[in-house]
Amino acid sequence: MAELIKTLAENTGARAEKFFKTTLFRSDTLLLGVNCLEPGQVQPPHDHAGQDKFYYVVEGQGNFWLGDERKVAGVGDVVWAPAGLVHGVSNDGDARLTLLVGIAPAP
Amino acid sequence: MAELIKTLAENTGARAEKFFKTTLFRSDTLLLGVNCLEPGQVQPPHDHAGQDKFYYVVEGQGNFWLGDERKVAGVGDVVWAPAGLVHGVSNDGDARLTLLVGIAPAP
Repeated sequence: MAELIKTLAENTGARAEKFFKTTLFRSDTLLLGVNCLEPGQVQPPHDHAGQDKFYYVVEGQGNFWLGDERKVAGVGDVVWAPAGLVHGVSNDGDARLTLLVGIAPAP
Repeated sequence: MAELIKTLAENTGARAEKFFKTTLFRSDTLLLGVNCLEPGQVQPPHDHAGQDKFYYVVEGQGNFWLGDERKVAGVGDVVWAPAGLVHGVSNDGDARLTLLVGIAPAP
């Protein structure tokens, strides 16, 4: 059987030029991955026409764009970006921001 | 705008007769919720014909059914149950098991 359990902390990382992202699991219905933003890194605001998305904050704190608003979310918070809503996140803190991210259906 | 950030810890709970579950966010493509299993509680093995599912362990430790196998997952582990695979979880420990759960598409 394919590997069905993955430890999130073993799937984190840092990149200098752009925030780190990796895929944990993927089917037609759902992509599940990890995003890591070092202090100062940004996922610019964007939208997905037909896809809903969530972020779960595992580590650090993110300053999210959600439509016209900016909202801070920390460890244990779940952020929901429904299809068509402009969303993104910046790490304005001084520690890594680690996010479990899901997109449905998968891109 | 509808509430787009929820704190998982504010959406936990316990029930005596059956494990606790609640929905955080729901669209056609994805249902995102929280399951809490007290020590000794069980989500019996079952499957979803057309839906993929994941569990993210937030607190405690779960003993998962995944097809014919049993696998233990702890805090920070992501468990993937693809459509059609029999899955479930028991809390064989002595602390609450709290899970972020996603089902795609939503039931």
